[in-house]
Amino acid sequence: MSEQASASTSPSGFFTEENSVATVNARMGRDVDPRLAEVMACLVKHLHNFAREINLTQDEWDFGIDFLTRTGQICTQERQEFILLSDTLGLSMLVDAINNRRPSGATENTVFGPFHVEGCPVRQMGDQICLDGKGESCLFIGRVLDLDGNPVAGAKIDVWSDNAEGYYDVQQPDIQPKWNNRGVFVTGADGRYSFVGIKPVSYPIPDDGPVGKMLNSLGRHPYRPAHMHYMVRAEGFQKLVTHTFVGGDPYLNSDTVFGVKKTLVAPFTRVESGNTLWRSDYDFVLARPRQTR
Amino acid sequence: MSEQASASTSPSGFFTEENSVATVNARMGRDVDPRLAEVMACLVKHLHNFAREINLTQDEWDFGIDFLTRTGQICTQERQEFILLSDTLGLSMLVDAINNRRPSGATENTVFGPFHVEGCPVRQMGDQICLDGKGESCLFIGRVLDLDGNPVAGAKIDVWSDNAEGYYDVQQPDIQPKWNNRGVFVTGADGRYSFVGIKPVSYPIPDDGPVGKMLNSLGRHPYRPAHMHYMVRAEGFQKLVTHTFVGGDPYLNSDTVFGVKKTLVAPFTRVESGNTLWRSDYDFVLARPRQTR
Repeated sequence: MSEQASASTSPSGFFTEENSVATVNARMGRDVDPRLAEVMACLVKHLHNFAREINLTQDEWDFGIDFLTRTGQICTQERQEFILLSDTLGLSMLVDAINNRRPSGATENTVFGPFHVEGCPVRQMGDQICLDGKGESCLFIGRVLDLDGNPVAGAKIDVWSDNAEGYYDVQQPDIQPKWNNRGVFVTGADGRYSFVGIKPVSYPIPDDGPVGKMLNSLGRHPYRPAHMHYMVRAEGFQKLVTHTFVGGDPYLNSDTVFGVKKTLVAPFTRVESGNTLWRSDYDFVLARPRQTR
Repeated sequence: MSEQASASTSPSGFFTEENSVATVNARMGRDVDPRLAEVMACLVKHLHNFAREINLTQDEWDFGIDFLTRTGQICTQERQEFILLSDTLGLSMLVDAINNRRPSGATENTVFGPFHVEGCPVRQMGDQICLDGKGESCLFIGRVLDLDGNPVAGAKIDVWSDNAEGYYDVQQPDIQPKWNNRGVFVTGADGRYSFVGIKPVSYPIPDDGPVGKMLNSLGRHPYRPAHMHYMVRAEGFQKLVTHTFVGGDPYLNSDTVFGVKKTLVAPFTRVESGNTLWRSDYDFVLARPRQTR
Protein backbone atom coordinates (compact mmCIF):
# COMPACT_ATOMS: atom_id res chain seq x y z
CA MET A 1 0.00 0.00 0.00
CA SER A 2 1.47 3.30 -1.07
CA GLU A 3 1.20 6.18 1.38
CA GLN A 4 -0.03 8.37 -1.45
CA ALA A 5 -3.72 8.19 -2.13
CA SER A 6 -5.13 8.01 -5.61
CA ALA A 7 -6.50 11.31 -6.92
CA SER A 8 -9.55 9.69 -8.48
CA THR A 9 -12.56 7.90 -7.06
CA SER A 10 -12.87 4.14 -7.47
CA PRO A 11 -14.75 2.84 -10.56
CA SER A 12 -17.74 1.94 -8.34
CA GLY A 13 -17.73 5.38 -6.69
CA PHE A 14 -17.65 3.62 -3.31
CA PHE A 15 -15.05 4.36 -0.64
CA THR A 16 -11.80 2.40 -0.85
CA GLU A 17 -8.60 2.76 1.13
CA GLU A 18 -6.75 3.93 -1.99
CA ASN A 19 -9.40 6.41 -3.12
CA SER A 20 -10.49 7.75 0.24
CA VAL A 21 -9.57 11.41 -0.32
CA ALA A 22 -11.08 11.66 -3.79
CA THR A 23 -14.24 9.85 -2.69
CA VAL A 24 -14.88 12.15 0.27
CA ASN A 25 -14.09 15.33 -1.64
CA ALA A 26 -16.20 14.30 -4.65
CA ARG A 27 -19.21 14.29 -2.33
CA MET A 28 -19.27 18.10 -2.01
CA GLY A 29 -22.14 19.88 -3.73
CA ARG A 30 -21.77 22.27 -6.65
CA ASP A 31 -22.88 25.48 -4.97
CA VAL A 32 -20.42 25.32 -2.09
CA ASP A 33 -18.47 28.48 -1.27
CA PRO A 34 -15.26 28.04 -3.31
CA ARG A 35 -12.88 28.91 -0.47
CA LEU A 36 -14.71 26.55 1.93
CA ALA A 37 -14.50 23.78 -0.66
CA GLU A 38 -10.77 24.40 -1.11
CA VAL A 39 -10.04 24.43 2.64
CA MET A 40 -12.10 21.30 3.34
CA ALA A 41 -10.59 19.35 0.42
CA CYS A 42 -7.11 20.20 1.70
CA LEU A 43 -8.07 19.28 5.28
CA VAL A 44 -9.47 15.89 4.21
CA LYS A 45 -6.32 15.18 2.18
CA HIS A 46 -3.95 15.89 5.06
CA LEU A 47 -6.16 14.17 7.65
CA HIS A 48 -6.32 10.98 5.57
CA ASN A 49 -2.64 11.11 4.66
CA PHE A 50 -1.77 11.41 8.35
CA ALA A 51 -3.80 8.28 9.22
CA ARG A 52 -2.40 6.44 6.20
CA GLU A 53 1.24 7.36 6.75
CA ILE A 54 1.23 6.43 10.45
CA ASN A 55 -1.07 3.39 10.06
CA LEU A 56 -3.31 4.77 12.78
CA THR A 57 -4.73 1.94 14.92
CA GLN A 58 -8.32 1.71 16.12
CA ASP A 59 -7.14 2.24 19.72
CA GLU A 60 -5.23 5.38 18.72
CA TRP A 61 -8.30 6.69 16.91
CA ASP A 62 -10.39 5.99 20.05
CA PHE A 63 -7.84 7.90 22.13
CA GLY A 64 -7.92 10.83 19.70
CA ILE A 65 -11.73 11.05 19.81
CA ASP A 66 -11.64 10.99 23.61
CA PHE A 67 -8.82 13.57 23.77
CA LEU A 68 -10.68 16.02 21.51
CA THR A 69 -13.87 15.50 23.51
CA ARG A 70 -12.11 16.23 26.81
CA THR A 71 -10.44 19.26 25.23
CA GLY A 72 -13.81 20.64 24.18
CA GLN A 73 -15.48 19.91 27.47
CA ILE A 74 -12.94 21.76 29.63
CA CYS A 75 -13.49 24.97 27.63
CA THR A 76 -15.36 27.80 29.37
CA GLN A 77 -15.71 31.55 28.83
CA GLU A 78 -12.38 31.94 30.66
CA ARG A 79 -10.54 28.91 29.31
CA GLN A 80 -9.87 27.95 25.70
CA GLU A 81 -8.14 24.57 25.65
CA PHE A 82 -8.24 24.25 21.83
CA ILE A 83 -6.21 27.49 21.57
CA LEU A 84 -3.72 25.99 24.04
CA LEU A 85 -3.60 22.88 21.84
CA SER A 86 -3.01 24.94 18.71
CA ASP A 87 -0.38 27.02 20.53
CA THR A 88 1.56 24.05 21.91
CA LEU A 89 1.55 22.26 18.54
CA GLY A 90 3.00 25.37 16.88
CA LEU A 91 -0.07 25.89 14.69
CA SER A 92 -0.91 29.31 16.13
CA MET A 93 2.58 30.61 15.40
CA LEU A 94 2.50 29.14 11.89
CA VAL A 95 -0.84 30.79 11.07
CA ASP A 96 0.53 34.06 12.49
CA ALA A 97 3.64 33.73 10.34
CA ILE A 98 1.73 32.91 7.15
CA ASN A 99 -0.49 35.95 7.60
CA ASN A 100 2.18 38.43 8.65
CA ARG A 101 5.08 38.09 6.23
CA ARG A 102 6.95 41.42 6.39
CA PRO A 103 9.88 43.04 4.68
CA SER A 104 13.26 42.73 6.36
CA GLY A 105 13.72 45.37 9.04
CA ALA A 106 10.07 45.50 10.09
CA THR A 107 9.31 44.26 13.60
CA GLU A 108 8.06 40.66 13.54
CA ASN A 109 4.72 39.45 14.85
CA THR A 110 4.20 36.79 17.45
CA VAL A 111 1.16 35.11 19.04
CA PHE A 112 -1.62 37.38 20.31
CA GLY A 113 -2.46 35.15 23.28
CA PRO A 114 -5.76 35.02 25.17
CA PHE A 115 -5.17 37.83 27.71
CA HIS A 116 -5.59 41.06 25.77
CA VAL A 117 -8.51 43.23 26.88
CA GLU A 118 -9.98 45.89 24.62
CA GLY A 119 -10.80 49.28 26.14
CA CYS A 120 -7.85 49.91 28.46
CA PRO A 121 -7.58 53.62 29.40
CA VAL A 122 -5.08 55.78 27.50
CA ARG A 123 -2.24 56.91 29.76
CA GLN A 124 0.38 59.67 29.57
CA MET A 125 3.86 58.84 28.32
CA GLY A 126 6.03 57.80 31.27
CA ASP A 127 3.08 56.63 33.40
CA GLN A 128 3.22 53.70 35.77
CA ILE A 129 1.06 50.70 34.66
CA CYS A 130 1.82 48.42 37.62
CA LEU A 131 -1.00 49.08 40.08
CA ASP A 132 -0.44 46.36 42.68
CA GLY A 133 3.03 47.52 43.79
CA LYS A 134 4.52 44.06 43.25
CA GLY A 135 7.52 43.14 41.13
CA GLU A 136 10.72 44.77 39.92
CA SER A 137 10.06 48.15 38.38
CA CYS A 138 11.19 48.59 34.79
CA LEU A 139 11.26 51.52 32.35
CA PHE A 140 10.15 50.53 28.82
CA ILE A 141 11.32 53.08 26.29
CA GLY A 142 11.83 53.49 22.55
CA ARG A 143 10.33 54.73 19.31
CA VAL A 144 7.79 53.73 16.69
CA LEU A 145 9.38 54.09 13.26
CA ASP A 146 8.63 53.36 9.63
CA LEU A 147 10.97 51.27 7.47
CA ASP A 148 12.89 54.41 6.46
CA GLY A 149 13.56 55.29 10.11
CA ASN A 150 11.05 58.14 10.28
CA PRO A 151 9.04 58.50 13.52
CA VAL A 152 5.40 57.43 13.34
CA ALA A 153 3.09 59.93 15.03
CA GLY A 154 -0.31 58.93 16.43
CA ALA A 155 0.64 55.25 16.83
CA LYS A 156 -1.55 53.61 19.47
CA ILE A 157 0.57 51.28 21.63
CA ASP A 158 -1.41 48.77 23.67
CA VAL A 159 0.76 46.98 26.30
CA TRP A 160 0.02 44.19 28.78
CA SER A 161 1.99 41.78 30.94
CA ASP A 162 1.60 39.39 33.84
CA ASN A 163 2.24 40.54 37.41
CA ALA A 164 5.11 39.49 39.68
CA GLU A 165 3.40 36.15 40.40
CA GLY A 166 2.94 35.32 36.71
CA TYR A 167 -0.81 36.07 36.42
CA TYR A 168 -2.62 38.54 34.18
CA ASP A 169 -5.21 40.73 35.91
CA VAL A 170 -8.07 38.94 34.11
CA GLN A 171 -6.92 35.64 35.63
CA GLN A 172 -7.30 37.12 39.13
CA PRO A 173 -10.17 39.63 38.90
CA ASP A 174 -10.80 39.41 42.66
CA ILE A 175 -7.16 39.93 43.66
CA GLN A 176 -5.55 42.31 41.16
CA PRO A 177 -6.63 45.92 40.51
CA LYS A 178 -8.49 46.40 37.20
CA TRP A 179 -6.08 47.24 34.33
CA ASN A 180 -3.09 46.11 36.42
CA ASN A 181 -0.01 46.01 34.17
CA ARG A 182 -1.92 47.32 31.16
CA GLY A 183 -1.84 50.62 29.35
CA VAL A 184 -2.47 52.38 26.05
CA PHE A 185 -0.11 55.10 24.86
CA VAL A 186 -0.26 57.32 21.79
CA THR A 187 2.92 58.64 20.17
CA GLY A 188 3.53 62.28 19.35
CA ALA A 189 5.47 63.71 16.41
CA ASP A 190 8.75 62.22 17.69
CA GLY A 191 7.33 58.66 17.66
CA ARG A 192 8.69 58.13 21.18
CA TYR A 193 7.06 56.03 23.88
CA SER A 194 7.91 55.28 27.49
CA PHE A 195 6.12 53.77 30.46
CA VAL A 196 6.97 52.13 33.75
CA GLY A 197 5.85 48.57 34.42
CA ILE A 198 7.53 45.54 35.93
CA LYS A 199 10.11 43.23 34.47
CA PRO A 200 7.73 40.41 33.44
CA VAL A 201 8.19 36.89 34.81
CA SER A 202 7.97 33.50 33.11
CA TYR A 203 4.82 31.46 33.83
CA PRO A 204 3.19 28.13 32.93
CA ILE A 205 0.16 28.01 30.63
CA PRO A 206 -2.82 26.29 32.33
CA ASP A 207 -1.61 22.69 32.51
CA ASP A 208 -4.23 20.84 34.54
CA GLY A 209 -6.22 19.73 31.45
CA PRO A 210 -5.74 17.52 28.38
CA VAL A 211 -3.07 19.80 26.89
CA GLY A 212 -1.05 19.75 30.11
CA LYS A 213 -1.26 15.93 30.09
CA MET A 214 -0.13 15.92 26.46
CA LEU A 215 2.88 18.14 27.20
CA ASN A 216 3.82 15.89 30.10
CA SER A 217 3.58 12.76 27.92
CA LEU A 218 5.82 14.46 25.35
CA GLY A 219 8.45 15.36 27.97
CA ARG A 220 7.73 19.08 27.57
CA HIS A 221 7.30 21.77 30.25
CA PRO A 222 4.37 24.25 30.13
CA TYR A 223 6.38 27.48 30.60
CA ARG A 224 6.51 30.66 28.57
CA PRO A 225 9.58 32.88 28.91
CA ALA A 226 8.92 36.33 30.42
CA HIS A 227 7.55 38.84 27.92
CA MET A 228 5.76 42.18 27.53
CA HIS A 229 2.87 42.19 25.04
CA TYR A 230 2.53 44.95 22.48
CA MET A 231 -0.11 45.74 19.90
CA VAL A 232 0.85 48.77 17.79
CA ARG A 233 -1.68 50.28 15.40
CA ALA A 234 -1.13 53.34 13.21
CA GLU A 235 -2.98 54.72 10.22
CA GLY A 236 -1.40 53.55 6.99
CA PHE A 237 0.59 50.70 8.55
CA GLN A 238 0.08 46.98 9.21
CA LYS A 239 -1.12 46.18 12.70
CA LEU A 240 1.77 44.80 14.75
CA VAL A 241 0.98 42.17 17.41
CA THR A 242 4.09 41.10 19.22
CA HIS A 243 6.03 40.66 22.48
CA THR A 244 9.43 41.73 23.66
CA PHE A 245 11.09 38.89 25.53
CA VAL A 246 13.31 39.36 28.57
CA GLY A 247 16.85 38.59 27.45
CA GLY A 248 18.43 35.87 29.58
CA ASP A 249 15.16 34.17 30.54
CA PRO A 250 15.79 30.43 31.14
CA TYR A 251 12.84 29.47 28.90
CA LEU A 252 13.85 31.57 25.87
CA ASN A 253 14.87 28.45 23.95
CA SER A 254 11.89 26.35 24.98
CA ASP A 255 8.80 28.60 24.94
CA THR A 256 5.96 26.08 25.14
CA VAL A 257 4.01 28.01 22.46
CA PHE A 258 7.06 28.67 20.21
CA GLY A 259 6.54 32.46 20.33
CA VAL A 260 10.17 33.56 20.59
CA LYS A 261 11.92 35.15 17.61
CA LYS A 262 15.54 36.23 17.78
CA THR A 263 14.67 39.84 16.87
CA LEU A 264 12.13 40.07 19.70
CA VAL A 265 14.56 39.33 22.53
CA ALA A 266 15.09 42.72 24.19
CA PRO A 267 17.84 43.95 26.52
CA PHE A 268 16.80 44.41 30.14
CA THR A 269 19.52 46.50 31.80
CA ARG A 270 19.91 46.94 35.56
CA VAL A 271 19.79 50.70 36.27
CA GLU A 272 18.59 51.28 39.87
CA SER A 273 17.52 54.84 39.16
CA GLY A 274 15.23 55.89 42.01
CA ASN A 275 12.59 53.15 42.42
CA THR A 276 13.26 51.79 38.94
CA LEU A 277 15.52 48.73 38.86
CA TRP A 278 15.51 47.94 35.12
CA ARG A 279 15.38 49.60 31.74
CA SER A 280 14.43 48.00 28.42
CA ASP A 281 14.98 49.86 25.14
CA TYR A 282 13.16 48.67 22.03
CA ASP A 283 12.14 50.37 18.76
CA PHE A 284 9.15 49.12 16.80
CA VAL A 285 9.34 49.33 13.01
CA LEU A 286 6.01 49.26 11.19
CA ALA A 287 5.47 48.00 7.65
CA ARG A 288 3.12 49.49 5.09
CA PRO A 289 0.08 47.34 4.18
CA ARG A 290 0.71 44.51 1.74
CA GLN A 291 -0.54 44.87 -1.81
CA THR A 292 -3.85 43.08 -2.08
CA ARG A 293 -4.73 41.19 -5.22
CA MET B 1 7.41 30.25 -0.05
CA SER B 2 7.53 26.55 -0.80
CA GLU B 3 4.69 24.45 0.54
CA GLN B 4 7.20 21.92 1.77
CA ALA B 5 8.69 22.67 5.18
CA SER B 6 12.35 22.28 5.91
CA ALA B 7 13.23 19.12 7.81
CA SER B 8 15.72 20.87 10.08
CA THR B 9 15.34 23.50 12.77
CA SER B 10 16.55 27.04 12.10
CA PRO B 11 20.13 27.90 13.10
CA SER B 12 18.82 29.88 16.08
CA GLY B 13 16.57 27.01 17.18
CA PHE B 14 13.67 29.49 17.23
CA PHE B 15 10.41 28.91 15.35
CA THR B 16 10.32 30.10 11.74
CA GLU B 17 7.68 29.59 9.08
CA GLU B 18 10.05 27.38 7.08
CA ASN B 19 11.21 25.26 10.03
CA SER B 20 7.95 24.99 11.94
CA VAL B 21 7.57 21.20 11.84
CA ALA B 22 11.16 20.43 12.79
CA THR B 23 11.13 23.04 15.56
CA VAL B 24 7.98 21.68 17.19
CA ASN B 25 9.02 18.05 16.89
CA ALA B 26 12.55 18.72 18.19
CA ARG B 27 10.97 19.88 21.45
CA MET B 28 9.93 16.34 22.46
CA GLY B 29 11.83 14.80 25.36
CA ARG B 30 14.07 11.75 25.12
CA ASP B 31 12.06 9.31 27.19
CA VAL B 32 8.82 9.68 25.26
CA ASP B 33 7.01 6.49 24.27
CA PRO B 34 8.38 5.78 20.76
CA ARG B 35 5.00 5.18 19.15
CA LEU B 36 3.54 8.34 20.72
CA ALA B 37 6.52 10.33 19.45
CA GLU B 38 6.05 8.90 15.95
CA VAL B 39 2.30 9.60 15.86
CA MET B 40 2.67 13.15 17.20
CA ALA B 41 5.53 14.02 14.82
CA CYS B 42 3.40 12.84 11.90
CA LEU B 43 0.36 14.75 13.17
CA VAL B 44 2.35 18.00 13.53
CA LYS B 45 3.76 17.56 10.03
CA HIS B 46 0.37 17.12 8.38
CA LEU B 47 -1.31 19.81 10.52
CA HIS B 48 1.34 22.37 9.57
CA ASN B 49 1.42 21.31 5.93
CA PHE B 50 -2.36 21.74 5.76
CA ALA B 51 -2.15 25.31 7.10
CA ARG B 52 0.81 26.08 4.84
CA GLU B 53 -0.67 24.61 1.65
CA ILE B 54 -4.01 26.37 2.06
CA ASN B 55 -2.57 29.63 3.47
CA LEU B 56 -4.98 29.41 6.37
CA THR B 57 -6.17 32.87 7.41
CA GLN B 58 -6.52 34.08 10.98
CA ASP B 59 -10.32 34.21 10.56
CA GLU B 60 -10.38 30.61 9.31
CA TRP B 61 -8.26 29.53 12.28
CA ASP B 62 -10.68 31.35 14.61
CA PHE B 63 -13.59 29.53 12.96
CA GLY B 64 -11.81 26.18 13.35
CA ILE B 65 -11.16 26.76 17.06
CA ASP B 66 -14.81 27.69 17.58
CA PHE B 67 -16.04 24.73 15.51
CA LEU B 68 -13.98 22.22 17.51
CA THR B 69 -15.12 23.82 20.77
CA ARG B 70 -18.80 23.56 19.80
CA THR B 71 -18.23 19.97 18.65
CA GLY B 72 -16.78 19.08 22.05
CA GLN B 73 -19.45 20.89 24.00
CA ILE B 74 -22.42 19.13 22.36
CA CYS B 75 -21.00 15.70 23.32
CA THR B 76 -22.84 13.79 26.06
CA GLN B 77 -22.97 10.16 27.19
CA GLU B 78 -25.49 9.59 24.39
CA ARG B 79 -24.01 11.80 21.69
CA GLN B 80 -20.49 11.71 20.25
CA GLU B 81 -20.15 14.58 17.78
CA PHE B 82 -16.41 13.98 17.18
CA ILE B 83 -17.22 10.46 15.96
CA LEU B 84 -19.82 11.97 13.62
CA LEU B 85 -17.13 14.39 12.41
CA SER B 86 -14.65 11.56 11.82
CA ASP B 87 -17.37 9.51 10.10
CA THR B 88 -18.51 12.28 7.75
CA LEU B 89 -14.93 13.18 6.79
CA GLY B 90 -14.26 9.54 5.88
CA LEU B 91 -11.61 9.13 8.59
CA SER B 92 -13.49 6.38 10.43
CA MET B 93 -13.78 4.28 7.27
CA LEU B 94 -10.11 4.87 6.44
CA VAL B 95 -8.95 3.75 9.90
CA ASP B 96 -11.23 0.72 9.60
CA ALA B 97 -9.76 -0.08 6.17
CA ILE B 98 -6.14 0.31 7.31
CA ASN B 99 -6.70 -2.04 10.23
CA ASN B 100 -8.76 -4.67 8.42
CA ARG B 101 -7.00 -5.51 5.16
CA ARG B 102 -8.20 -8.99 4.20
CA PRO B 103 -7.51 -11.54 1.50
CA SER B 104 -9.79 -11.53 -1.53
CA GLY B 105 -12.97 -13.49 -0.89
CA ALA B 106 -13.22 -12.64 2.80
CA THR B 107 -16.17 -10.45 3.80
CA GLU B 108 -15.13 -6.82 4.13
CA ASN B 109 -15.42 -4.67 7.25
CA THR B 110 -17.29 -1.40 7.53
CA VAL B 111 -17.82 1.17 10.30
CA PHE B 112 -18.89 -0.12 13.69
CA GLY B 113 -21.13 2.87 14.47
CA PRO B 114 -22.19 4.11 17.88
CA PHE B 115 -25.29 1.96 18.40
CA HIS B 116 -23.98 -1.50 19.28
CA VAL B 117 -24.85 -2.70 22.79
CA GLU B 118 -22.90 -5.49 24.46
CA GLY B 119 -24.84 -8.19 26.32
CA CYS B 120 -27.82 -8.82 24.06
CA PRO B 121 -29.52 -12.17 24.83
CA VAL B 122 -28.65 -15.17 22.65
CA ARG B 123 -31.66 -16.28 20.59
CA GLN B 124 -32.57 -19.45 18.72
CA MET B 125 -31.97 -19.66 14.98
CA GLY B 126 -35.04 -18.40 13.14
CA ASP B 127 -36.20 -16.18 16.03
CA GLN B 128 -37.91 -12.85 15.59
CA ILE B 129 -35.83 -9.84 16.74
CA CYS B 130 -38.35 -7.11 15.93
CA LEU B 131 -40.25 -6.59 19.20
CA ASP B 132 -42.32 -3.49 18.43
CA GLY B 133 -44.35 -5.00 15.59
CA LYS B 134 -43.47 -2.16 13.23
CA GLY B 135 -41.90 -2.41 9.78
CA GLU B 136 -41.77 -4.85 6.91
CA SER B 137 -40.82 -8.32 8.11
CA CYS B 138 -37.70 -9.84 6.55
CA LEU B 139 -35.93 -13.20 6.80
CA PHE B 140 -32.14 -12.90 7.05
CA ILE B 141 -30.46 -16.17 6.13
CA GLY B 142 -27.09 -17.56 5.13
CA ARG B 143 -23.89 -19.23 6.31
CA VAL B 144 -20.65 -18.41 8.07
CA LEU B 145 -17.77 -19.87 6.08
CA ASP B 146 -14.00 -19.91 6.02
CA LEU B 147 -12.02 -18.91 2.93
CA ASP B 148 -12.09 -22.51 1.68
CA GLY B 149 -15.88 -22.62 1.83
CA ASN B 150 -16.09 -24.78 4.96
CA PRO B 151 -18.81 -23.94 7.50
CA VAL B 152 -17.66 -22.24 10.71
CA ALA B 153 -19.28 -23.76 13.80
CA GLY B 154 -19.68 -21.77 17.04
CA ALA B 155 -19.57 -18.39 15.31
CA LYS B 156 -21.30 -15.74 17.43
CA ILE B 157 -23.36 -13.44 15.20
CA ASP B 158 -24.40 -10.17 16.81
CA VAL B 159 -27.01 -8.25 14.75
CA TRP B 160 -28.69 -4.87 15.19
CA SER B 161 -30.71 -2.45 13.06
CA ASP B 162 -32.92 0.60 13.33
CA ASN B 163 -36.71 0.23 13.59
CA ALA B 164 -39.28 1.19 10.96
CA GLU B 165 -38.96 4.88 11.91
CA GLY B 166 -35.16 4.87 11.55
CA TYR B 167 -34.24 4.84 15.25
CA TYR B 168 -32.19 2.31 17.23
CA ASP B 169 -33.71 1.18 20.52
CA VAL B 170 -31.02 3.02 22.52
CA GLN B 171 -32.08 6.29 20.87
CA GLN B 172 -35.64 5.80 22.16
CA PRO B 173 -35.29 3.93 25.47
CA ASP B 174 -38.72 5.19 26.66
CA ILE B 175 -40.55 4.20 23.46
CA GLN B 176 -38.98 1.02 22.08
CA PRO B 177 -38.82 -2.36 23.88
CA LYS B 178 -35.36 -3.24 25.23
CA TRP B 179 -33.29 -5.20 22.66
CA ASN B 180 -35.71 -4.21 19.88
CA ASN B 181 -34.21 -5.27 16.54
CA ARG B 182 -31.16 -6.87 18.18
CA GLY B 183 -30.09 -10.46 18.62
CA VAL B 184 -27.15 -12.80 19.11
CA PHE B 185 -27.06 -16.15 17.31
CA VAL B 186 -24.52 -18.98 17.48
CA THR B 187 -23.92 -21.25 14.50
CA GLY B 188 -23.98 -25.04 14.66
CA ALA B 189 -21.85 -27.51 12.67
CA ASP B 190 -23.48 -26.43 9.38
CA GLY B 191 -22.47 -22.77 9.86
CA ARG B 192 -26.01 -21.70 9.03
CA TYR B 193 -27.83 -18.71 10.52
CA SER B 194 -31.31 -17.28 10.13
CA PHE B 195 -33.47 -14.78 11.95
CA VAL B 196 -36.49 -12.59 11.26
CA GLY B 197 -36.20 -8.83 11.60
CA ILE B 198 -37.41 -5.92 9.50
CA LYS B 199 -36.12 -4.60 6.22
CA PRO B 200 -34.07 -1.70 7.66
CA VAL B 201 -34.78 1.88 6.58
CA SER B 202 -32.43 4.73 5.69
CA TYR B 203 -32.06 7.47 8.34
CA PRO B 204 -30.20 10.74 8.94
CA ILE B 205 -27.34 10.88 11.44
CA PRO B 206 -28.00 13.50 14.17
CA ASP B 207 -27.72 16.73 12.18
CA ASP B 208 -28.76 19.49 14.58
CA GLY B 209 -25.17 20.17 15.72
CA PRO B 210 -21.89 21.46 14.25
CA VAL B 211 -21.46 18.41 11.99
CA GLY B 212 -24.97 18.83 10.55
CA LYS B 213 -24.14 22.49 9.84
CA MET B 214 -20.91 21.43 8.17
CA LEU B 215 -22.69 18.90 5.94
CA ASN B 216 -25.22 21.55 4.97
CA SER B 217 -22.47 24.05 4.10
CA LEU B 218 -20.82 21.37 1.95
CA GLY B 219 -24.04 20.64 0.06
CA ARG B 220 -24.25 17.14 1.56
CA HIS B 221 -27.25 15.32 3.06
CA PRO B 222 -27.00 13.52 6.43
CA TYR B 223 -28.51 10.17 5.36
CA ARG B 224 -27.22 6.63 5.67
CA PRO B 225 -28.63 4.00 3.30
CA ALA B 226 -30.63 1.23 5.03
CA HIS B 227 -28.42 -1.50 6.53
CA MET B 228 -28.33 -4.40 8.99
CA HIS B 229 -25.33 -4.43 11.35
CA TYR B 230 -23.35 -7.61 11.92
CA MET B 231 -20.48 -8.47 14.22
CA VAL B 232 -19.25 -12.03 13.68
CA ARG B 233 -16.73 -13.55 16.08
CA ALA B 234 -15.35 -17.10 15.93
CA GLU B 235 -12.36 -18.77 17.56
CA GLY B 236 -9.37 -18.75 15.21
CA PHE B 237 -10.74 -16.04 12.88
CA GLN B 238 -10.52 -12.26 12.59
CA LYS B 239 -13.45 -10.42 14.10
CA LEU B 240 -15.75 -9.17 11.34
CA VAL B 241 -17.60 -5.89 11.89
CA THR B 242 -19.80 -5.06 8.95
CA HIS B 243 -23.25 -4.24 7.55
CA THR B 244 -25.33 -5.64 4.74
CA PHE B 245 -26.90 -2.81 2.75
CA VAL B 246 -30.38 -2.97 1.27
CA GLY B 247 -29.91 -3.24 -2.49
CA GLY B 248 -31.74 -0.45 -4.32
CA ASP B 249 -31.64 2.05 -1.44
CA PRO B 250 -31.60 5.63 -2.84
CA TYR B 251 -28.65 6.60 -0.62
CA LEU B 252 -26.37 3.67 -1.58
CA ASN B 253 -24.14 5.97 -3.61
CA SER B 254 -24.07 8.80 -1.11
CA ASP B 255 -23.83 7.27 2.39
CA THR B 256 -22.92 10.26 4.54
CA VAL B 257 -20.32 8.17 6.44
CA PHE B 258 -18.95 6.41 3.30
CA GLY B 259 -19.69 2.93 4.73
CA VAL B 260 -20.95 1.24 1.55
CA LYS B 261 -18.77 -1.32 -0.23
CA LYS B 262 -19.89 -3.04 -3.40
CA THR B 263 -19.56 -6.52 -1.85
CA LEU B 264 -21.77 -5.56 1.10
CA VAL B 265 -24.85 -4.65 -0.94
CA ALA B 266 -27.23 -7.59 -0.36
CA PRO B 267 -30.28 -8.73 -2.30
CA PHE B 268 -33.62 -8.10 -0.60
CA THR B 269 -36.21 -10.23 -2.42
CA ARG B 270 -39.97 -9.79 -2.07
CA VAL B 271 -41.36 -13.18 -0.91
CA GLU B 272 -44.66 -12.64 0.95
CA SER B 273 -44.45 -15.97 2.71
CA GLY B 274 -46.87 -15.82 5.65
CA ASN B 275 -46.20 -12.59 7.55
CA THR B 276 -42.75 -12.28 6.02
CA LEU B 277 -42.55 -9.84 3.11
CA TRP B 278 -38.82 -9.98 2.33
CA ARG B 279 -35.86 -12.35 2.27
CA SER B 280 -32.16 -11.44 2.26
CA ASP B 281 -29.51 -14.10 1.64
CA TYR B 282 -25.92 -13.37 2.59
CA ASP B 283 -22.91 -15.57 3.44
CA PHE B 284 -20.14 -14.24 5.68
CA VAL B 285 -16.61 -15.42 4.92
CA LEU B 286 -14.14 -15.11 7.80
CA ALA B 287 -10.38 -14.67 7.41
CA ARG B 288 -7.71 -16.24 9.60
CA PRO B 289 -5.79 -13.82 11.85
CA ARG B 290 -3.04 -11.85 10.15
CA GLN B 291 0.54 -12.80 10.90
CA THR B 292 1.86 -10.50 13.58
CA ARG B 293 5.43 -9.30 13.44
